Amino acid sequence: MTIHKGDNCGFTQASAPILNGKRSIGVKKQTVFFQNPPKIIAGASVVTDRESKGPIGQYFDITEHDPKMGKKCFESAEITMMDKAVRKAVEKSGKRIGDIDAFMAGDLLNQITTSAYVARGLEIPFIGLYNACSTFTEAIAIGSMMISSGYYENILCSTASHFATAERQYRYPLEYGSQRPPYAQWTVTGAGCSVLSNKGEGPRVVAATIGRVIDFGINDLSNMGAAMAPAAMDSMTRLFKDTDTRPEDYDLILTGDLGKLGSDILRDLMREQGYELGQRYIDCGSLIYDVTQKCYQGGSGAGCSATVFNSYILRKINEGEYNRVALFATGALMSTQSCYQGETMPSISHGIVVER
Amino acid sequence: MTIHKGDNCGFTQASAPILNGKRSIGVKKQTVFFQNPPKIIAGASVVTDRESKGPIGQYFDITEHDPKMGKKCFESAEITMMDKAVRKAVEKSGKRIGDIDAFMAGDLLNQITTSAYVARGLEIPFIGLYNACSTFTEAIAIGSMMISSGYYENILCSTASHFATAERQYRYPLEYGSQRPPYAQWTVTGAGCSVLSNKGEGPRVVAATIGRVIDFGINDLSNMGAAMAPAAMDSMTRLFKDTDTRPEDYDLILTGDLGKLGSDILRDLMREQGYELGQRYIDCGSLIYDVTQKCYQGGSGAGCSATVFNSYILRKINEGEYNRVALFATGALMSTQSCYQGETMPSISHGIVVER
Repeated sequence: MTIHKGDNCGFTQASAPILNGKRSIGVKKQTVFFQNPPKIIAGASVVTDRESKGPIGQYFDITEHDPKMGKKCFESAEITMMDKAVRKAVEKSGKRIGDIDAFMAGDLLNQITTSAYVARGLEIPFIGLYNACSTFTEAIAIGSMMISSGYYENILCSTASHFATAERQYRYPLEYGSQRPPYAQWTVTGAGCSVLSNKGEGPRVVAATIGRVIDFGINDLSNMGAAMAPAAMDSMTRLFKDTDTRPEDYDLILTGDLGKLGSDILRDLMREQGYELGQRYIDCGSLIYDVTQKCYQGGSGAGCSATVFNSYILRKINEGEYNRVALFATGALMSTQSCYQGETMPSISHGIVVER
Repeated sequence: MTIHKGDNCGFTQASAPILNGKRSIGVKKQTVFFQNPPKIIAGASVVTDRESKGPIGQYFDITEHDPKMGKKCFESAEITMMDKAVRKAVEKSGKRIGDIDAFMAGDLLNQITTSAYVARGLEIPFIGLYNACSTFTEAIAIGSMMISSGYYENILCSTASHFATAERQYRYPLEYGSQRPPYAQWTVTGAGCSVLSNKGEGPRVVAATIGRVIDFGINDLSNMGAAMAPAAMDSMTRLFKDTDTRPEDYDLILTGDLGKLGSDILRDLMREQGYELGQRYIDCGSLIYDVTQKCYQGGSGAGCSATVFNSYILRKINEGEYNRVALFATGALMSTQSCYQGETMPSISHGIVVER
């Protein structure tokens, strides 16, 4: 891998506080470099049968065979799932819940109830986040700032989604048997959790790009990839510019859940910006399901990037297959109500750069 | 005012990174002291007629006479309101939107759409937060960490709520004419925004206590004060213990929106913990409406603490009437769905300490 050496902003020369002086929006740097990069000392993922039968199924920690997980409703199952992911991640890190300084989490349910009810059982400080399916990298980015600055030692970052709860809330209850359009994606039923720490072994979070809200006017609740691709383009371009890097400088560039269609749109948009993503780019949503699984454009949901990253990707980084990975989780920030009221879908993407 | 001098944790000796070593939950410190306390260089508030006719009505920046603000729906009005509060705060700070490094915001609507649509128009990095009505202090706390650590210079912290959108979403649409129980509160129609900065003049945010999720088993969606009081008790006690202070060490102790009933419960709970809150304690929800306004227990909503703090409280601190204020915004983390499914209301409260 060729590492592009910029004048002053290669990752190896991480020059923290970069946000100095007044700049106009157009050239403003959105990327934060971490002076003391926190480490991802453990990650865990919980999924259901569908995900475990996909191409990277063997990498998930726990597979639930019952999508209700013995609970009365899918929402309770989602809580159980995130709780398991969190406890598994803490166990893998060799720590106890009591060692953790804060739990940063979010999910797709109204009022992020999955995260709140999990937090209730953890009895540690809770920081609720919501940037839809980009919440996972939002949590890693903010958590990294909190650790890098010396205020915190250990932080949990977790997100989850559930196909049945998401369909009911955002589209139609499964019982309606609605037909899905060919550009639809399949919400991942899964939860992922990373343990960030200032000590220990693991890949380092060296930089984060906090995204802006971008809206290209899509208003079809099934066409999420198209809505989110411009946000991914905006943050990805910003990362490259702020760090003076190019796609070739990364072993792997990931987006969260653009799906097949959204990924193709992103490739086109990036080409217009002068960046050829090539083979090193893949979308977590494209990675998690096989084309034979009838998930159309692939996976989506806050659990998509969180499960893929905390299983397959983290393993491959730890095994030395990837040395530098950029992950851009992508989120659409509408509600069903805002769309019914005629609004389009604003989107966002937060990026993180993880190095072995 | 008597300042209690603790051995090692008086505010004047602010010893940042306090989160060192392993501790069990029971004694774990949740309070962060800021080495370089950020300043609140400006604050702005937008309300409607009801709030402007209340006891502190003269302190709000903008009063909207039409609760729909010329829009087709209340949700659009809420967006307009937050947008106005944000732009007013930035204007008062003498900065431009382009000078701001990040917009941290949250609100009560599903998927925090108010904040997302405001963020779309600002075109600066957006960090979406959700801890219900305690989101305002969550934003100030996290934003203060981001500035104090040197990563950011200027951050906007904003929350909003609207009586009509909240009633429709959490209880019943106004058109139903539902009867309200006597222990109900009135969601504040208002938005507040603070500008945090590493430079300039203004009160300093010297410490923040990140709350835990507490659930005392309340499941009545109208009885928010009772649900949230235990969370306020937990965080307030934690602040006092972590900082070795007592109520007498503060000129003013505020909660966000416990209302009259919730405040009375909190006084009792704190008494059980050995703290007499006395006259220095007041609730923003009790402050914003007069008893003649038929708002029962007082104001509530994410806009309650944000408008009261960014108008009356900020003014009184700047005028020298209060030198040290502790604000505990309080949030109930349920959704209507979680309550319909038999869950109780978990609550949280994040505290900030602001000094002149």
